[in-house]
Amino acid sequence: MNMTRELCDAIERTTFEQIPTDAIAEAKLCLLDWLGVTLGGAHEPLTKILMEIGDLVGGEKQSSIVGHARKTSILNAALINGSASHALDFDDVHFQMMGHPTVPVMPALLSLAEVRKSSGRDVLTAFLLGFEAECRIGSSVFPFHYQQGWHATSTIGRFGAAAACSKLLGLDAARMSFGLGVAGTQAAGLKQVFGTMSKPFHAGKAAMDGLLAALLAEKGFTCSEDIIAGEGGFCKVLSPDANPELIMQDFGKTYAIGNVMFKRHASCFETHPTIDAALDIRSKVRADDIAEVRVSAVPVALEIAGKTEPSTGLEGKFSLAYCAALALVDGETGEDRFSDENVLSDQLVAMRKKITVTPDEQLGLTQAEITVRMRDGRQLKSSADTLESGSNKEKRKADLVRKFRSFAERLLPPGRADAIIRFVENMEAQKNVAKLLALCRP
Amino acid sequence: MNMTRELCDAIERTTFEQIPTDAIAEAKLCLLDWLGVTLGGAHEPLTKILMEIGDLVGGEKQSSIVGHARKTSILNAALINGSASHALDFDDVHFQMMGHPTVPVMPALLSLAEVRKSSGRDVLTAFLLGFEAECRIGSSVFPFHYQQGWHATSTIGRFGAAAACSKLLGLDAARMSFGLGVAGTQAAGLKQVFGTMSKPFHAGKAAMDGLLAALLAEKGFTCSEDIIAGEGGFCKVLSPDANPELIMQDFGKTYAIGNVMFKRHASCFETHPTIDAALDIRSKVRADDIAEVRVSAVPVALEIAGKTEPSTGLEGKFSLAYCAALALVDGETGEDRFSDENVLSDQLVAMRKKITVTPDEQLGLTQAEITVRMRDGRQLKSSADTLESGSNKEKRKADLVRKFRSFAERLLPPGRADAIIRFVENMEAQKNVAKLLALCRP
Repeated sequence: MNMTRELCDAIERTTFEQIPTDAIAEAKLCLLDWLGVTLGGAHEPLTKILMEIGDLVGGEKQSSIVGHARKTSILNAALINGSASHALDFDDVHFQMMGHPTVPVMPALLSLAEVRKSSGRDVLTAFLLGFEAECRIGSSVFPFHYQQGWHATSTIGRFGAAAACSKLLGLDAARMSFGLGVAGTQAAGLKQVFGTMSKPFHAGKAAMDGLLAALLAEKGFTCSEDIIAGEGGFCKVLSPDANPELIMQDFGKTYAIGNVMFKRHASCFETHPTIDAALDIRSKVRADDIAEVRVSAVPVALEIAGKTEPSTGLEGKFSLAYCAALALVDGETGEDRFSDENVLSDQLVAMRKKITVTPDEQLGLTQAEITVRMRDGRQLKSSADTLESGSNKEKRKADLVRKFRSFAERLLPPGRADAIIRFVENMEAQKNVAKLLALCRP
Repeated sequence: MNMTRELCDAIERTTFEQIPTDAIAEAKLCLLDWLGVTLGGAHEPLTKILMEIGDLVGGEKQSSIVGHARKTSILNAALINGSASHALDFDDVHFQMMGHPTVPVMPALLSLAEVRKSSGRDVLTAFLLGFEAECRIGSSVFPFHYQQGWHATSTIGRFGAAAACSKLLGLDAARMSFGLGVAGTQAAGLKQVFGTMSKPFHAGKAAMDGLLAALLAEKGFTCSEDIIAGEGGFCKVLSPDANPELIMQDFGKTYAIGNVMFKRHASCFETHPTIDAALDIRSKVRADDIAEVRVSAVPVALEIAGKTEPSTGLEGKFSLAYCAALALVDGETGEDRFSDENVLSDQLVAMRKKITVTPDEQLGLTQAEITVRMRDGRQLKSSADTLESGSNKEKRKADLVRKFRSFAERLLPPGRADAIIRFVENMEAQKNVAKLLALCRP
């Protein structure tokens, strides 16, 4: 028995009934959040270019382009929707996977589900197992893989997409392991391209390649039997310090989706604890009365989001100082707050200049601290932990629904956001997921 | 200035007139050989599956599927033709590239050239520069990259395809470097899958991904500016011992295509010196009179082609002992000689059992030695060097044309092989390469 086969056996065996209701509930949130950020990215320049390529090569009108009144081939749709959904970098995050778990899986799966008229139950089951596969493979190569320069959303995302699509197609474990094989031998994506259109492209390409892998496996295409842990397989070549024995640990007993994190702010995930702490300060004082701000964040947050003088909206998303200023002055942190104009506005620049950011190795990965000195000499302190902010389930869901609405209402006719929310809430009872995609047409 | 940009500047600058006629002549041989092996692989099971996927997703009827009376989208055609052309593992080889240089580049390029009605001159120029790019990138990561587990035909092939297509599209160096960027961040392919349908798939997928990269770059898609030698780029992540400074050495002064090698036998390239030495023996003695055979080959040849008891045609291709037996007994080494039936035939099994293969570290990569003891006690010795066997230009071309005919005449109507040979011989004068593809329709 090899590791790839063990994983595929477990995926083949697992049924909807065996999955805890908590995990199902989280999967629905992932779906709703994904639809929101995909609608949000549907008209980004990079999405437009990918749609032009789709038009150039053509294809059957099989699957919807989210946020457009159009269909394209299942492979094109996976590429376009996957890239659109990561365009704003506002989609969900998972530490185990070292990246964004839903953007490579959901677009591949929905693309396939739409054309096969799959049920909501089958889509949820396949999604959860694809998600599980990528998080487990992620754990086995954590943190070396990401440190080495790989963009895990792209590399490991291909496994998630292939596993989910293989499950939806009902492949047996033998074929599924070839599907993961074809996915794994296409695993690519370098962090070097961060900050360009190619980062979101990674998510879409992972979705497309993973879906292609599953379709090939369905037709009997052959591949290595143990792409994950084989002598020259994914772990050995792309992450020599891997621990593939972790992959099957407690499979079916714990579900990785329990630790998924949703972005509430339209900026880099590493800025979230800082923003949360700043919002807490804002609830207590007037921004005009602030004399000086000291932000303490984990060193890695400064590495990734340490821009001190951002001059564009995109740079603002990677600037702890700008994000803190925005939270203190404005209190809103949606996509529209990261425009070039906003980042350069007098008021926000003035606040940003009062802010110093320093690394603090004592803090956890999801923590930040802010100390504020007021004009009258008073000092205020606030600390935040993104994980804890997410532990209030009610507020977490309300935040997510609000975020979804902000994107859906901008693009879709009145009432449609509500219809989508209702559809997703009753996902396990839906007979045909194609209807959900139809609701996403403007 | 960065390495990717330097390479793209050089590719942008280079014109057909600057390329030596020797190199042009070699490029034509690569084209003819590629057409032959692609016709040869056109009806393999893996090609059939990929065509089914092409049918499933559909697309504009833009580019020909070689050996079929059908067209599909440019991306599908690149995938299908690229995979078909590597299906028999009978295509050309280059040490600098550590793999098969033409199979990722030519299918992408012809797919694009057909729909854009490009001239023969432009196709030759683009092909030579794509070939040059992949060999130079290959040199910079040689031999670590391959040793680490990467299938260079797949990883580095993407750069070749993207460079060739970018040149044909007339992209300036800035856009071309984004094209190489998008190609490089898709670079994938593990040796782990050797011996399965996924090996030939690598060539087709490299062609498809490289073509997609060039098309995206043409439309203004952005990427890292130095994917090759950047801090987290291809060299650093996929081959930490790389020497990227070798990439631009003597660019335009020497052309890598001068060292391309064409396979004359339908088996693993590592078996070629052994077969050549055995054919020499065969010209001197009768197989029935042979009592014992000792083959000495480089250790790596035994690693790759050391199967001692092959039981299928595919295994026979990777068995020095079977290949030597075939050459001694039969003298023919074409695709039909590697059937399951042939490998298990009494006569060839009997001869194979007389053969011992031993590694010899003194031999060069392209060398082998055979010592034969005859029933009457006489000893005969023969050594061969694949590179030298290729140095007789007349014979080399005659062998290649014969190989091409063997595939073309099986599939195409009478006279068509001649027409294709004439077309390719006058390639630089051809106004529209689409006509060449039309000649490849049955």
